[in-house]
Amino acid sequence: MHNFVYHNPTKVIFGKGTIPQTGNETAAFGKRVLLVYGCLSAKSNGLLQRVIGSLEEAGCIVVEHGGVRSNPSLADVHIAIQSAKAENIEVICAVGGGSVIDAAKAISVGTCAEHDVWKFFTGKKSIRQKLPLIAVSTLAASGSEVNSGMVLTNDSTQQKFGFGHRLLHPEVAIMDPETTFTVPANYTAYGAIDALAHIMEFYMTTEQAGINVQDRYMEGLAKCIMESCDHVLLDSGDYQARASLMWSAALALNGLSAAGLGKVGFPMHLIEHSISALHNVPHGAGLSVVIPGWLKYQANQQPARMVQFFRQVFDIKEMSEVETIDCGISALTAWFKKSGAPVSLKELEIDAGEISQFAENALAQAKIWRMREYTQEKIESILELCTGANA
Amino acid sequence: MHNFVYHNPTKVIFGKGTIPQTGNETAAFGKRVLLVYGCLSAKSNGLLQRVIGSLEEAGCIVVEHGGVRSNPSLADVHIAIQSAKAENIEVICAVGGGSVIDAAKAISVGTCAEHDVWKFFTGKKSIRQKLPLIAVSTLAASGSEVNSGMVLTNDSTQQKFGFGHRLLHPEVAIMDPETTFTVPANYTAYGAIDALAHIMEFYMTTEQAGINVQDRYMEGLAKCIMESCDHVLLDSGDYQARASLMWSAALALNGLSAAGLGKVGFPMHLIEHSISALHNVPHGAGLSVVIPGWLKYQANQQPARMVQFFRQVFDIKEMSEVETIDCGISALTAWFKKSGAPVSLKELEIDAGEISQFAENALAQAKIWRMREYTQEKIESILELCTGANA
Repeated sequence: MHNFVYHNPTKVIFGKGTIPQTGNETAAFGKRVLLVYGCLSAKSNGLLQRVIGSLEEAGCIVVEHGGVRSNPSLADVHIAIQSAKAENIEVICAVGGGSVIDAAKAISVGTCAEHDVWKFFTGKKSIRQKLPLIAVSTLAASGSEVNSGMVLTNDSTQQKFGFGHRLLHPEVAIMDPETTFTVPANYTAYGAIDALAHIMEFYMTTEQAGINVQDRYMEGLAKCIMESCDHVLLDSGDYQARASLMWSAALALNGLSAAGLGKVGFPMHLIEHSISALHNVPHGAGLSVVIPGWLKYQANQQPARMVQFFRQVFDIKEMSEVETIDCGISALTAWFKKSGAPVSLKELEIDAGEISQFAENALAQAKIWRMREYTQEKIESILELCTGANA
Repeated sequence: MHNFVYHNPTKVIFGKGTIPQTGNETAAFGKRVLLVYGCLSAKSNGLLQRVIGSLEEAGCIVVEHGGVRSNPSLADVHIAIQSAKAENIEVICAVGGGSVIDAAKAISVGTCAEHDVWKFFTGKKSIRQKLPLIAVSTLAASGSEVNSGMVLTNDSTQQKFGFGHRLLHPEVAIMDPETTFTVPANYTAYGAIDALAHIMEFYMTTEQAGINVQDRYMEGLAKCIMESCDHVLLDSGDYQARASLMWSAALALNGLSAAGLGKVGFPMHLIEHSISALHNVPHGAGLSVVIPGWLKYQANQQPARMVQFFRQVFDIKEMSEVETIDCGISALTAWFKKSGAPVSLKELEIDAGEISQFAENALAQAKIWRMREYTQEKIESILELCTGANA
């Protein structure tokens, strides 16, 4: 086990009927609130009005910043930062999925910085201050509501970059599984696939010796994520399954899985970000295309970890290593398909001719993340396995 | 899944060579430090001197309070509180296992209270303030270094009571597995058994419906705890096994396993505390005596959960529920024996005639913990199964 520091100070308030706590939890940090939300769902299902009602009841003055899109943009964050500064905002309340919460994180640290917020993402500046953040999560996916990461897209440079810092942990995460009842089937699956990617990336790229509590933790989460997602796709209002999916996805990237693994990275995300930076596809859909190809490539690099993962998660027995890998990749790909997620660039209507562009785009992030092994050639080779040409 | 609040703000610094960080981590909260430690081991292996060196290097003024015994006493905590007040202590640094850290927690909150610290344990007062606490853990067992609980023994009333409050989370836990290399084999096993008890108590007394990420989490921890302990008992200097045991034991009671389970309790601890209150036996040794009897009794109350636990943890297949329970209890009891832990009151040289006294003693805690189902009769029935009369 490698040395580690684990410190996740986010207070999680989880369960049905917890939305009315948003007001008091937010007001504890300040009265002038920037309310950050997305495009459609929060407004249409009445959630936003309930949050605003709770904030106002707690004596908050609410300034709204709506319309955050998926794959949130730097330009939009710039506008929100200006608004936050002009309105002397003291605390941010984000209502939405990972995109909204990530945008809110960028606004939170960008408002306290003299320089452009993008400099955090390019590694040119480190975070020193933030506005407190209350995250009302409405999607089981990124775990952003409980973790220290954020991802933002710079439209002018076509770069989708991720950045992590301990100050990015929200102060409070409010997680009511009932808010996810209206998430459509395909986005439910995309969220589950995002969470699975977070587990597999860490699991399959780190060497573990001896007994590893992290392995059992990640295997258990992976099983729960898939099983919960299956139940939700059968019955979108299955509370227990929605709750299990929501909490499992959060635990998949709250820092605990990585504690003790040594240096971890996000190779699947690295490649996917280049696809959604250039094509604005849903993140989880991009991942479900990248994952099978990445697994086929990785199978030759570090097979032992992949074999162990598949044996534990898919209960594969009495098969050779090679067979286990084949069987595992097939099972996972089949599960993606069954869940309504695309598994090839072709299905995303992306031409294989763009592969070198994706690779080039990903290289900039690989450099900042110090993933030297992810060369142009390697990324291209992985993406060649994602085309669906042989499907 | 039940609604829950999960908030564990403790910063964990884990790994070899982390002891020298104690000074700076402590000094960040204040310079006047009360150093709390136990009787022998910390002094003899040089750890205490390394901690003092680190504290002094960080500019701290160190006031020592050593000699905390296992099953720490209220009388000793009273002395330390007086000392902390007289010396204007700003921060506490505890070096030891659960007993030392629990005593330090009581000192931390007792120093800030006008009333007697025991009133927290009897439920007559709630905690409002504390001194910051840095816990340097030297035993894989209680998880006290990362959780919000403490246990103290009032010698004059012969009551060993536990109490939990969110302010009891240490600010920082420093966990160097190498500090546990010198823990003797039997105490290593006692620690593992304590951690197993924390898992089984929650798992086997709560109803779960549908998919439960907590179940997979707890099953994984139980397996790791036993497997790591086995390795340590073969080679006391096996770093990976010591690390795995230390982190698994911490995760077994850091709040995460209980999140979503609804009301959880400590029935095994309830009964054990009465034994160590009256006989001052090591906590884990008392537990290894209580657990087999409690399981036999519980098998008739809530068999389904026990069956699932044993099937998952001991990989029991193709057996009826009754056979699974028999097999599981036998396997666990055999594992206790193999690990050098006693499995009957007889082995502790405790006469079965004392059972009614233990039950009476436990009732006071059961009342405070609102465990109404634990009547005198029930506790006696459980303890009758722990005598070893039929062994």
